Amino acid sequence: MEKWKRSARLVDMTRQLLGEPRRLIPLTAFAQRYQAAKSSISEDLDIIDDVLRAEGGGELETLAGAAGGVRYLPGIHASHAMKIVEKLCGKLSDADRLLPGGFLYVSDLLGDPVLLSEIGRIFASVFARKTVDAVMTVETKGIPLAYATAFYLRVPVVIARYGYRVTEGSVVTVNTVSGSGGTMRQLSLSKRSLAQGSRVLIIDDFMKGGGTVRGMMDLLSEFQAEVAGIGVMLESRTEQRLVDSWVSLAQVKEVDMNKRRIEVVPGNVFDPEGGLIPC
Amino acid sequence: MEKWKRSARLVDMTRQLLGEPRRLIPLTAFAQRYQAAKSSISEDLDIIDDVLRAEGGGELETLAGAAGGVRYLPGIHASHAMKIVEKLCGKLSDADRLLPGGFLYVSDLLGDPVLLSEIGRIFASVFARKTVDAVMTVETKGIPLAYATAFYLRVPVVIARYGYRVTEGSVVTVNTVSGSGGTMRQLSLSKRSLAQGSRVLIIDDFMKGGGTVRGMMDLLSEFQAEVAGIGVMLESRTEQRLVDSWVSLAQVKEVDMNKRRIEVVPGNVFDPEGGLIPC
Repeated sequence: MEKWKRSARLVDMTRQLLGEPRRLIPLTAFAQRYQAAKSSISEDLDIIDDVLRAEGGGELETLAGAAGGVRYLPGIHASHAMKIVEKLCGKLSDADRLLPGGFLYVSDLLGDPVLLSEIGRIFASVFARKTVDAVMTVETKGIPLAYATAFYLRVPVVIARYGYRVTEGSVVTVNTVSGSGGTMRQLSLSKRSLAQGSRVLIIDDFMKGGGTVRGMMDLLSEFQAEVAGIGVMLESRTEQRLVDSWVSLAQVKEVDMNKRRIEVVPGNVFDPEGGLIPC
Repeated sequence: MEKWKRSARLVDMTRQLLGEPRRLIPLTAFAQRYQAAKSSISEDLDIIDDVLRAEGGGELETLAGAAGGVRYLPGIHASHAMKIVEKLCGKLSDADRLLPGGFLYVSDLLGDPVLLSEIGRIFASVFARKTVDAVMTVETKGIPLAYATAFYLRVPVVIARYGYRVTEGSVVTVNTVSGSGGTMRQLSLSKRSLAQGSRVLIIDDFMKGGGTVRGMMDLLSEFQAEVAGIGVMLESRTEQRLVDSWVSLAQVKEVDMNKRRIEVVPGNVFDPEGGLIPC
């Protein structure tokens, strides 16, 4: 635009801020772009912040000083998160998902970019106050969830892979116990993919015994990296678990193959320790 | 918000429209939400549309009639796409990426959610005028690119997998010729994942001989589905190719393992047939 009216400026600032969560934009950059006084820019930012807070989409954070600026911190109201999780539970409870062996078909849900974006926003809100340098997952089904979360946290994704791939270069490999039957599998992470000492958020689609998540934690300790948190879309409780603390969006309560019935309820994300308490 | 001022309304409409590309929002929904006349809403939409077009972020499309409304169609200026592709080529030309066998390490680029989002926007713009019912890719590295593209096209992602996985239910399997050495691999797609007759956009990270893409095309014909287009982030030209027509963002021109030199140039996306012509 050659000349910016205030209304156009508000639209463009909203577009820029929301388009890249957590990117810091200096106020001087806005002032120059719109040929406007910093005080006008600040007034506009207040309006954007008010709307975001009222409508539950997060907030703006203003950092003072020479290296300062403004950035968009994504968030979600617990009541809106509950609606998304209830919709998810409803879909997961569909008996048509039952596969031989008691497995659930979930690839359609993990193929829906809008649902994934909402789930990523929930995870990013739950872990917003933690220092997170990277999001880690394991191939294949956790990948879209990890990216959706990492987009809102503005951090890279690292993917642990089963076995060795030539395109990963040198790797670190650990043994993991697979949930289905106690068989051992090798899980690898490229040495280039993670800096030593990183704080890493683990995201996966499903956790039962926790063997895969445990494998990722073992990989992280090989990198002298720390676990910043663990988030799974769906968990199934079991007596023996290899992981102590995690956040789940949904929980399989019961699977009855004979009656062809699945019951899925909201996970611990809405418990007091889960991070999202509905109003 | 209890009472909407015009400035807040502009921010909120921008947030809603850009947050879910291609979602149709009825004008009456806006009019009710903001307790405003449809004529005022239309004026606001014109402002948003003007900013999007001027700043190269796409446009708004208004559909008349009872089932009508407004939706955001993402887009990208060819000049901005060229900047992203040039940055990508610069990063890909880094000799530190060279792995034994002449392979390139690209997992860091495919782990960057901001870069991925930009690439997804480019692919979505290139194929915007095609009818696309789903985006298809193959595990593992193509997955984030497929999701980034599908988000802007508002269609589901389907993932072809090597071998058989119990969580996919019944699958259709084809044989593919792997690029590296002519070995055969089985590629499977869950029968539930794609409706017959779908028009499918194939997205992948890398294409040389085209064996993997050809495998996906063979899978699609088993589903009586059609190829709506093929987009790859990086291609390496070779004499024998199993695919006729594709869009690439970047092209490996030369790899010299002895001199440790890689040359990567923009792909055919900026050719006249590629879909994006820089001004």
